[in-house]
Amino acid sequence: MQLGVIGLGRMGANIVRRLTRAGQACVVYDRDPAPGKALAADGATAVESIAAMVGALAAPRTVWIMLPAGAATESTIELLRPLLKRGDCVIDGGNSFWRDDVRRGKSLAGDGVDYMDVGVSGGVWGLERGFCMMIGGRRETFERLDSVFKTLAPGRGTIPPTPGREARDSRVEEGYLYAGPCGAGHFVKMVHNGIEYGLMQAYAEGFDILRNADAPTVDAEHRFTVDVADIAEVWRRGSVVSSWLLDLTSIALAREEKLESFSGYVEDSGEGRWTLQAAIDEAVPAEVLSAALYARFRSRKEHTFAEKIISAMRKGFGGHVEPKKP
Amino acid sequence: MQLGVIGLGRMGANIVRRLTRAGQACVVYDRDPAPGKALAADGATAVESIAAMVGALAAPRTVWIMLPAGAATESTIELLRPLLKRGDCVIDGGNSFWRDDVRRGKSLAGDGVDYMDVGVSGGVWGLERGFCMMIGGRRETFERLDSVFKTLAPGRGTIPPTPGREARDSRVEEGYLYAGPCGAGHFVKMVHNGIEYGLMQAYAEGFDILRNADAPTVDAEHRFTVDVADIAEVWRRGSVVSSWLLDLTSIALAREEKLESFSGYVEDSGEGRWTLQAAIDEAVPAEVLSAALYARFRSRKEHTFAEKIISAMRKGFGGHVEPKKP
Amino acid sequence: MQLGVIGLGRMGANIVRRLTRAGQACVVYDRDPAPGKALAADGATAVESIAAMVGALAAPRTVWIMLPAGAATESTIELLRPLLKRGDCVIDGGNSFWRDDVRRGKSLAGDGVDYMDVGVSGGVWGLERGFCMMIGGRRETFERLDSVFKTLAPGRGTIPPTPGREARDSRVEEGYLYAGPCGAGHFVKMVHNGIEYGLMQAYAEGFDILRNADAPTVDAEHRFTVDVADIAEVWRRGSVVSSWLLDLTSIALAREEKLESFSGYVEDSGEGRWTLQAAIDEAVPAEVLSAALYARFRSRKEHTFAEKIISAMRKGFGGHVEPKKP
Amino acid sequence: MQLGVIGLGRMGANIVRRLTRAGQACVVYDRDPAPGKALAADGATAVESIAAMVGALAAPRTVWIMLPAGAATESTIELLRPLLKRGDCVIDGGNSFWRDDVRRGKSLAGDGVDYMDVGVSGGVWGLERGFCMMIGGRRETFERLDSVFKTLAPGRGTIPPTPGREARDSRVEEGYLYAGPCGAGHFVKMVHNGIEYGLMQAYAEGFDILRNADAPTVDAEHRFTVDVADIAEVWRRGSVVSSWLLDLTSIALAREEKLESFSGYVEDSGEGRWTLQAAIDEAVPAEVLSAALYARFRSRKEHTFAEKIISAMRKGFGGHVEPKKP
Repeated sequence: MQLGVIGLGRMGANIVRRLTRAGQACVVYDRDPAPGKALAADGATAVESIAAMVGALAAPRTVWIMLPAGAATESTIELLRPLLKRGDCVIDGGNSFWRDDVRRGKSLAGDGVDYMDVGVSGGVWGLERGFCMMIGGRRETFERLDSVFKTLAPGRGTIPPTPGREARDSRVEEGYLYAGPCGAGHFVKMVHNGIEYGLMQAYAEGFDILRNADAPTVDAEHRFTVDVADIAEVWRRGSVVSSWLLDLTSIALAREEKLESFSGYVEDSGEGRWTLQAAIDEAVPAEVLSAALYARFRSRKEHTFAEKIISAMRKGFGGHVEPKKP
Repeated sequence: MQLGVIGLGRMGANIVRRLTRAGQACVVYDRDPAPGKALAADGATAVESIAAMVGALAAPRTVWIMLPAGAATESTIELLRPLLKRGDCVIDGGNSFWRDDVRRGKSLAGDGVDYMDVGVSGGVWGLERGFCMMIGGRRETFERLDSVFKTLAPGRGTIPPTPGREARDSRVEEGYLYAGPCGAGHFVKMVHNGIEYGLMQAYAEGFDILRNADAPTVDAEHRFTVDVADIAEVWRRGSVVSSWLLDLTSIALAREEKLESFSGYVEDSGEGRWTLQAAIDEAVPAEVLSAALYARFRSRKEHTFAEKIISAMRKGFGGHVEPKKP
Repeated sequence: MQLGVIGLGRMGANIVRRLTRAGQACVVYDRDPAPGKALAADGATAVESIAAMVGALAAPRTVWIMLPAGAATESTIELLRPLLKRGDCVIDGGNSFWRDDVRRGKSLAGDGVDYMDVGVSGGVWGLERGFCMMIGGRRETFERLDSVFKTLAPGRGTIPPTPGREARDSRVEEGYLYAGPCGAGHFVKMVHNGIEYGLMQAYAEGFDILRNADAPTVDAEHRFTVDVADIAEVWRRGSVVSSWLLDLTSIALAREEKLESFSGYVEDSGEGRWTLQAAIDEAVPAEVLSAALYARFRSRKEHTFAEKIISAMRKGFGGHVEPKKP
Repeated sequence: MQLGVIGLGRMGANIVRRLTRAGQACVVYDRDPAPGKALAADGATAVESIAAMVGALAAPRTVWIMLPAGAATESTIELLRPLLKRGDCVIDGGNSFWRDDVRRGKSLAGDGVDYMDVGVSGGVWGLERGFCMMIGGRRETFERLDSVFKTLAPGRGTIPPTPGREARDSRVEEGYLYAGPCGAGHFVKMVHNGIEYGLMQAYAEGFDILRNADAPTVDAEHRFTVDVADIAEVWRRGSVVSSWLLDLTSIALAREEKLESFSGYVEDSGEGRWTLQAAIDEAVPAEVLSAALYARFRSRKEHTFAEKIISAMRKGFGGHVEPKKP
């Protein structure tokens, strides 16, 4: 099956590579011609415009957009819309807000064009490990595109099967899931990322407590200096907290135990925020996922106005004069 | 009734002043002779040693210690112990850990000496407004010292009475409470401060959200610039969030709306920490009180190791390179 | 000045009463005729339809809507819209989402009709204490309606003035604030309620810790039984945590120390949720305000699916079988 | 090397089994004779008293205690103390509080007896997967007992090595770590469990949000019904959130998607609590680890007093009458 791919950044390029290596025909486009040329060497067909891409694909066409969520994705869909025909399909593989998918799916359906939202996890390791995919849209379209998803997915690998799944859709065990109608793919991916934030913060706080086991505020006979690199490594084997995130932590700490090359300034993308909105809409308590997001917000400020308010109150009622930051 | 007071810092000196102004005889001591001299002008008797204080008091003696919690208070009690006689009483008016009070009360009882722990709220305003007191120890001793507490307390003032309290101990409405046996006074004061942290953080977060209503991350047509000084002031009248802490916030913001003279570095004292320990011992969820304490911890760091761990993971799975802090 | 009021529930009726008692002419309407009749006895003019109200008001008309946020308010504005003329004004005094105000203000401006959003705090006590108001819309309209707001507001009362405010708008000290353009009034009121949730939760956790000071998990010699009703009362005088919410807590505990007539099921309205959305949009950490909201979500469930997931994991890795809830 | 093992519950018995299967001589004891008999069939020597165990071991003796933390472990150590000789060694493999280890290590050192604290992760799967161990005590003793730890540990298995660890102690990669002096083993294990709580809660909240994607509070066109069992499974392959805890979740959900056999009542053991105490002692913010613990506290209550306080305040200021829990 032929696939058009728009957006050849790290993720888009790796998706094309994984497909072409498996013999899948890809027509690729990016505003910047460089990555297209590189992928052409791998067997993809690079074109110079979206119109050229549509022209190069046989009907029914499938175009996978792999662009930053928001304006870039939105405007590309609007460019594509008049070029596509009834039966064609647009896939948004970026990190779009799932409510945008619901809207777009409905709108494109009016033109007879299919829309699928595919949440993709796997990051820079996806080329090698395969991509875990959560897929929303019409089930018929999901079935029609099965070979694409199958190729991109990690497959069963050496991971032991889960008992009790014998009667269920085995594709899930290969790492791709039909999640439901338009929006469901990115909805599931959004919660995935929300969980990811929480997991990361749990490890981070734990390693912070370990690292500060020799803090001067602790009485001398109860202070330790522990080796956080070794601790991360030992937990990889047989412990309850083993995970891929821990593997990555162990790699980072083996390289640089104090992580001094990192500033501590941490970005967040939309999924963590949208997960909280979903929790609030559903009235589900999400203390840990919130705390994980707020820690990132806080990491990007020297001080908050909140902290100054507290200092001002303390001065007001107790005459406390806070020391300036050392 | 004669009262000895050891420790003439801001709080101790104000306590002596409120007592002497009411005609109460005070014998006072501090390592630094200066505050004693100042209080002598107000009618107190300044002495040059703890032994001299004990000598100057008629039996049964009552000695109020107003020193920093921990070593200073502990060692002063040990200095006093051999000088006191059966029937004398030691009052710890500082911010001691209530479990220390339980221990000390038991130990001094072995010598026939009474021990009372008095949690004192009111800060630098206590001289003028009176001190709110939470008192632990033997009830008989509490009754015997009633005139001291009554003088220090704010009294009914203009605060409207609470309906339904007619049959209850009216001293509570004057601002002093017999809380229970040794330790109960500081236990109640500890939770008082734990709540105080939570209240402060609630206001602080709210004002932070108001102050950032024009943040560039908000879409332009939904951005506001609001006047936080006026907001604090308007809430003082008729709103659900009016409080003394809000009064202090309004004063601070009227003086300096951006609070630029504050670094944002916020100290904490033991009570917030002990409150969490109590919550944990009792298995009571205390999310807000914890968050308030942690915000202070975080305010004292440029970055946490936790944040670097997260950046390191993000680089590991996604190749994300965090921007350096601007 | 004549004022039309639509919606005569507890808040609407009290607003009318406070205005009519001050001699202000009010034309009132509610789907249910009963409250209008009651208010007519107080001097208001009750009408039987919105059209009748518009007919009874001299231009420029001012109609204050005091209805539940959402559909009720929205549809009433749409009913009013064709009846109003250039120069008339609609006030939304309910708890609307401030982004709805921005939209409505813009839309009505197209018809030459003014729109003001007024956040009102004071609850059932407003009739007696006055209403604290945060007001968004055009400044000229705010000035024109000054006498209405002045009458509704608490006024200076016995609350001591804040030093340093001499050069500022004195109306703020009477309890009403011009907050900014359309939406700003409800935006400020929203954060007010967000703070309110946080303050309430801080007190609540503290009293929970006090109430459980005798929990069986605490070792016997460190257990207390404390009187939470007396503690709430003593803190009203001279303590750092005194506030109106504490006054209300003291009243409730004096009536019923164990609060057994309350189930513990706690509702939330939109403002707490929207406050978190604002915090997220602005990238401001709001840990305490979130925790306060989540505690309410949790209070309305017997158990969460989250808890079952944890039990299932614990069984999986440790063979732990959780006891059934007693 | 001969090893005495006291305490033959699930963990103790599996430790003995893993050792005897590798040909290690074990002398075993439990108050209940049944498990000793079972292990005798596996090649262990079961004895009828602690004294008999000490008699059966050649000097220098090593006795591994695998009992519940607290009184059981403490009293067993006191029973052993007079029976042991200079050069003997006591291992506490339970979940003791690390400060107890510091104290015991110091105390036994006075008798010339070694003490090691071994934090053991792996739960019921340890027999098969091996036990991940974090070990505190004298380094010489750790070296002397290396063969025991090596046998119990999981070994390298199929887990890929971490680049950059070539120059480091390779035993860490087999799943056992010399963590530092007495107390360090259980300190690291404590933080391990603190992290575990945080990870579990992150997954739990995420699955709760997924499960409630069809909550009635969500507007109809944005409601989904998603299959949480399939979602857990798909994330096991190639996603950032893959982990052993996720594997267990997938197993549980494949068996019973609604987890209706679980009440939702969740226990906690000491480690989560002690982790927070360590964080507080070190002044390290630990929002996520705290929230995870508090969620368990909350799960064990029908309602908190905190919730009733909030309802009482709401009634006080707004006349709100909360609905009874359905």
